[in-house]
Amino acid sequence: MFNKQIENIRMSPIVTISEEIRRIAPIFKEKTGLDFIRFQRGEIDFPTPEYIRNAAKKALDDGFTKYPKSGGEPDLKDAILGKLERFNGAHNLTRDNIVTTYGGQEALELSFQLFKGKKAAGFGPTWSVVLENFIPFADIDFKEIALNDDFSVNFEILEEVAKEITFFYLNTPQNPTGKLFTEEEVTKIVEICKRNDVYIISDEAYEKITFEGKKHFSPTSLEYDKIISTFTFSKSYSMTGWRLGYLVTRNETITKLLTMANYTQTAGVTTFMQYAGKEAYNNIEAEEKAVSNMIVEFEKRRNLLYDGFKAIDGVEVTKPDGAFYLFPNFTNFIPKDLTGDERNKYIYNKLLDIGIATVYGSCFGSCFNDNLRFSFSTTPIEAIEEGMERMQKLFRELA
Amino acid sequence: MFNKQIENIRMSPIVTISEEIRRIAPIFKEKTGLDFIRFQRGEIDFPTPEYIRNAAKKALDDGFTKYPKSGGEPDLKDAILGKLERFNGAHNLTRDNIVTTYGGQEALELSFQLFKGKKAAGFGPTWSVVLENFIPFADIDFKEIALNDDFSVNFEILEEVAKEITFFYLNTPQNPTGKLFTEEEVTKIVEICKRNDVYIISDEAYEKITFEGKKHFSPTSLEYDKIISTFTFSKSYSMTGWRLGYLVTRNETITKLLTMANYTQTAGVTTFMQYAGKEAYNNIEAEEKAVSNMIVEFEKRRNLLYDGFKAIDGVEVTKPDGAFYLFPNFTNFIPKDLTGDERNKYIYNKLLDIGIATVYGSCFGSCFNDNLRFSFSTTPIEAIEEGMERMQKLFRELA
Repeated sequence: MFNKQIENIRMSPIVTISEEIRRIAPIFKEKTGLDFIRFQRGEIDFPTPEYIRNAAKKALDDGFTKYPKSGGEPDLKDAILGKLERFNGAHNLTRDNIVTTYGGQEALELSFQLFKGKKAAGFGPTWSVVLENFIPFADIDFKEIALNDDFSVNFEILEEVAKEITFFYLNTPQNPTGKLFTEEEVTKIVEICKRNDVYIISDEAYEKITFEGKKHFSPTSLEYDKIISTFTFSKSYSMTGWRLGYLVTRNETITKLLTMANYTQTAGVTTFMQYAGKEAYNNIEAEEKAVSNMIVEFEKRRNLLYDGFKAIDGVEVTKPDGAFYLFPNFTNFIPKDLTGDERNKYIYNKLLDIGIATVYGSCFGSCFNDNLRFSFSTTPIEAIEEGMERMQKLFRELA
Repeated sequence: MFNKQIENIRMSPIVTISEEIRRIAPIFKEKTGLDFIRFQRGEIDFPTPEYIRNAAKKALDDGFTKYPKSGGEPDLKDAILGKLERFNGAHNLTRDNIVTTYGGQEALELSFQLFKGKKAAGFGPTWSVVLENFIPFADIDFKEIALNDDFSVNFEILEEVAKEITFFYLNTPQNPTGKLFTEEEVTKIVEICKRNDVYIISDEAYEKITFEGKKHFSPTSLEYDKIISTFTFSKSYSMTGWRLGYLVTRNETITKLLTMANYTQTAGVTTFMQYAGKEAYNNIEAEEKAVSNMIVEFEKRRNLLYDGFKAIDGVEVTKPDGAFYLFPNFTNFIPKDLTGDERNKYIYNKLLDIGIATVYGSCFGSCFNDNLRFSFSTTPIEAIEEGMERMQKLFRELA
């Protein structure tokens, strides 16, 4: 009866996991006296920096409460252009190359809609919302190209697949692996797509969350005009609940179409919020402080988790250079004969038993189902230490 | 190449009109020394009431900057339930009957998407965004049922059309006529739809803008479970730029599906804004003052415009009971042999010549193309008086 593309959207298993944790955490506490340690969420535990909140308040009082301009306020677009130049090294862009959206989410949703019914591919593991929401909603025929075990790219397979797809979904830094694709890798991916006339939807939500001085490399800095790069203020500025983002493309036919689609869906992005976004980008001094504090903390958490897993014989773990996820592999601890759901949730359930919440690998597609995602975006140092102790004990027993 | 449903979205002619006015107003001013009088916009010239802005600021500082809950914050949903009981007389509803959205726009867009590819109908004239955006984007086969000259309903045609459609789009109070459908009319429309198993998408954006103590009657107060009522904070609280709205339906399959679709599009509505919406509804005392001041002003403007047109021989005008539009008919002043675009814009152009901006009837579909929409939402009393003088002079000359 109803629109099949809406009926085909699936509820995120991560939501189900969070609900399960809410249910069992008190029971666990009563039995053991211990708190649950939550590694399952993509939320951020920092507040939105005060300078950004103040800009929103000022815009509210300055009367920026009228209908937004179609496609975005010129003031915000100019701030975005500045950031694209400064941070992404993306030049020769104008306001007409930008559409502001409700988070990276709407930027991606609109981009997927643009290619409704077409064939596409992306690296596996793949962010769950792509698989459960964007793909069914836009009726995309999607192929997962498995990354190598150390999350490097298998370019031979990419070359093959590129021949038969309309667009490639790239996510860097990547959820759930924390993989930061290098300039060399991104350049090569773009070249392959260009040679095959393939569009790229580039999801750069975690662009500012990178470690050890390594830098995000945006495909939009290359001048291929079939790239749509999507960005959000959510992760860089602890603004997950604001829902502020945008897309950038050198193809102005696309910005025109997606400006209309964005208008149709929501009539544009909340006006006064756009002025907060402008301040987030333009007040470079305040930004520096707010963002670097957060990165320092994330890097500590990452190191703790990484070093902890490294010390456990049998766990295979790759050090993430970006985002706030670790995606270790537990094949060595899973009985060889286990298959299907039982296999996918085997370690996940063992961890639940010791009060640790994670996301099992099959939430991210069909590759890497022996892995688990550990998010450290909301887990304080002490909780990570406590969690590592519990896990080291568990895996000694399982070995 | 790209999604046809996006390519088929049309740019609003009202945007084109506003751009034209921006271009010619300075030229007109230079030539005549007179200001352009703008009746073309649906914007509101009141600021968002302070008590609502303060609630948003408080929510920002209280940390409501994290991801919103899927479908809407329980606090806002409870405030909406209170308003539905109190103002709409809609009972026996729960949080599960509500989805919060980006304005009435997203509530309508999602509702239209639900019926993708289906047949539908609505009264003509029809709000331009329905015709230009929602219908092509959701690939709807739409039939306009012309209202009678006094904007009353031709129930015989409705009975006929109801046999062959999946849903009926109702807008009360109506844009562009200002028609407030009475309890009797709404009840009869719902009965006809129910008898023919037809869904209703009910657009109640202007529910609080009604005159002379007349009240909006919501179809959702009737217990038919195939109604989706869409609401917005935009018009009642001068919050057009906030983009805060919601949909209500007794059919929980629909709320489940549209919660998923809303999540897919935007990941939900900005968290702290929802707390401002809660305050807008729950602070009844502050609301009373803010809204009634606005209504008093709108009623003055309506009366001026209505009385002015009434005094012009040959203009047919129906007094609007709601919204902030007048939709007079000018057939008596249009040369009988004119057709097409020339006819549609004949009076519109005459008015441009005397520095008056309106929207011509064909922007609202194929019925009532000899009418013009006058919005009085941003036009101060003195400007209306000045405009009426110019028009009375013009129509004396044209008569």
